[in-house]
Amino acid sequence: MDVEILKSLLIDGSKGKIVLLVMDGLGGLPVEEGGKTELEEAITPNMDALAKKSTLGLHQGIRPGITPGSGPAHLSLFGYDPLEYQVGRGALSALGIDFDLHKDDVAARGNFCTVDEKGVITDRRAGRIGTDVGEKLCDLLNEKINIPGVEVFLRPVKEYRFLLVMRGEGLKANIQETDPQTVGEKTLTAKAMDPGSEKAAKIIQEFVKQAEKILVNEHPANMLMLRGFAQLPNWPTFPQRFGLKPAAIAMYPMYRGVAKLVGMNSLPAAHSYEEEIDMLEANWKDYDFFFVHIKKTDSYGEDGNFEKKVHEIEKVDALLPRILALDPAALIITGDHSTPCAMKYHSWHPVPVLLYSKLCRPDGIDHFGERACLRGGLGVRFPAYELMPLALAHAGRLEKFGA
Amino acid sequence: MDVEILKSLLIDGSKGKIVLLVMDGLGGLPVEEGGKTELEEAITPNMDALAKKSTLGLHQGIRPGITPGSGPAHLSLFGYDPLEYQVGRGALSALGIDFDLHKDDVAARGNFCTVDEKGVITDRRAGRIGTDVGEKLCDLLNEKINIPGVEVFLRPVKEYRFLLVMRGEGLKANIQETDPQTVGEKTLTAKAMDPGSEKAAKIIQEFVKQAEKILVNEHPANMLMLRGFAQLPNWPTFPQRFGLKPAAIAMYPMYRGVAKLVGMNSLPAAHSYEEEIDMLEANWKDYDFFFVHIKKTDSYGEDGNFEKKVHEIEKVDALLPRILALDPAALIITGDHSTPCAMKYHSWHPVPVLLYSKLCRPDGIDHFGERACLRGGLGVRFPAYELMPLALAHAGRLEKFGA
Repeated sequence: MDVEILKSLLIDGSKGKIVLLVMDGLGGLPVEEGGKTELEEAITPNMDALAKKSTLGLHQGIRPGITPGSGPAHLSLFGYDPLEYQVGRGALSALGIDFDLHKDDVAARGNFCTVDEKGVITDRRAGRIGTDVGEKLCDLLNEKINIPGVEVFLRPVKEYRFLLVMRGEGLKANIQETDPQTVGEKTLTAKAMDPGSEKAAKIIQEFVKQAEKILVNEHPANMLMLRGFAQLPNWPTFPQRFGLKPAAIAMYPMYRGVAKLVGMNSLPAAHSYEEEIDMLEANWKDYDFFFVHIKKTDSYGEDGNFEKKVHEIEKVDALLPRILALDPAALIITGDHSTPCAMKYHSWHPVPVLLYSKLCRPDGIDHFGERACLRGGLGVRFPAYELMPLALAHAGRLEKFGA
Repeated sequence: MDVEILKSLLIDGSKGKIVLLVMDGLGGLPVEEGGKTELEEAITPNMDALAKKSTLGLHQGIRPGITPGSGPAHLSLFGYDPLEYQVGRGALSALGIDFDLHKDDVAARGNFCTVDEKGVITDRRAGRIGTDVGEKLCDLLNEKINIPGVEVFLRPVKEYRFLLVMRGEGLKANIQETDPQTVGEKTLTAKAMDPGSEKAAKIIQEFVKQAEKILVNEHPANMLMLRGFAQLPNWPTFPQRFGLKPAAIAMYPMYRGVAKLVGMNSLPAAHSYEEEIDMLEANWKDYDFFFVHIKKTDSYGEDGNFEKKVHEIEKVDALLPRILALDPAALIITGDHSTPCAMKYHSWHPVPVLLYSKLCRPDGIDHFGERACLRGGLGVRFPAYELMPLALAHAGRLEKFGA
């Protein structure tokens, strides 16, 4: 209902442009008692100056204590409650490798695995074969699999993981996974869970039968398992929901993919932060919402490299004047989730947010960091999906509710 | 469900009195970088002294980023989620001009407009005729309209706007609007949208036919359009929900109207803040909830007159000792929404709240202002409709939940 009300309040023809700058995994932790977080440690004169004129806070991507994956974390930032808008893993895998999934395709995540002579699984990851081996096996299957009336695509993801996509008429994805999630058992049959999925299930069964024969002499990856059968969701798009013409600027396919999922226009892959800002400038006139994704803050968080994560934040700070020179009506600087170097992993910790607009009520805070954001006017642990309505308001795009 | 639980916890016969003092449009913004808001600028020794003993915070009237109209903003303060409790525009218009709408009346908002000789609308606002012209046209229609079995009332609102009310048996309001919302088209037929509304729709059609003839020689207002057909909602009343006997004290009809909508007793119109407090004192024994409405903070906000808005806040501060002398068990001082002078309009910015009671846990804050409230125990951006349960608790009116 809230979404419908928001839509009814959108002002036709309003022009305020919004930039959502996401430093992936931005939130952090001190690595020693009494120490600073990565963002607190970073020297960020531009963000600090902006903080004085902004409203700050800390968002919670999903729900209390829930560590967000990248997909749901970004959906939440895009204004979609990720518990309401769930994407099947197969579709997410396709997005993650830039596979151009069509509307009626059925996608699944696959694992190469090892089975014994009776077909009993002995290693669910086939001894963690290298990505090069995974690629070779996908090529082999793409060449030999032959199922009349349907196209089948295999794409390597990483190591033993791959993507399977079926393309044909009348396919539905409500199919039982073939991965029993344990060793010591045989793979399961891909049964249809509803009548509409019968056709696709039969194709999967035929695919598995052929694949088993093709892989029989490979070692250790002599079998495969499938899970997360999914199609592209049929959601109201970002332009429909928010009346914005959006562009996504990102270096990695996963983030362009999630943006495309909600109907954003994905600009070509950038190769550096500078190039991302070049693209922002070059496309400024043609869109009114820009999602700009910064990846390496997360990567260095996952590596546990505190100094390098700090340095990435400082590099983004140095680029901020170029964004501000475009004079966005609203600018959000935040992360999708926390990736504290101290944990080397995504975490549930709330994520600092800076919302800048000429219409902000300043909080009286003079720098951007986790502890500073505790005193901000956006509040603490608010749902990340509240940021979009707030951005629309600050960009002058919403009219009053009721008389 | 929350409402039912709250009701089940109400303590019979508890006596604590609650005052809700609403400074309309209280929340503000600095007009220059680094400046103060209207409330921060105001010299408010009484509120500041009270803040030390109170719990503070910032409420959000409707939802994140949503700018509240006066009706929904007050409903939220009265403990009604305004998205759940929506009032039709016709009924709101009646409230706004103090029209005594009966339970089964159907009300609509009207515009006088200009049509050409073919009945095509050429000006939806009839050249913005003056209020005096609108009054004259309403008088003319009241005199000449004659529909057997039903009473029809026309009341001027402002300029080209008027209120239409039908009173009779078996009327329902699910009727298509006659306003096509654009020029270059004829007015639409007031069709019934469900069988129960057939009778009222026929009456409206007859009314429009007669009105067209009566207005034909007027210029420029030679036709009218109707929208927002509505009846009084059938909601659980404020006394039913909260076990309180409520009185509304306000200078303007709109606010008495919204109070009446939830079953408050509206005291006669006051003509000054002093008179409002006189009425509070005079009626102190007869009620246990008082809604006191201060209008001009909003009016000066809409005018963009920073100094005068500050001065109105100071005037209210000077009256505070008289309220405190009555020894309310709980006193809430807040606004219904923000009306920053810098914007000359209602806004979505959260609104400062002070909740005083002898049972408050003080926040350690020594003044009442937007930035001070950021550190308050009520939190930031909490829904305004949470204030009523908090007030009931602080007034000793709620028992423990569960054993």
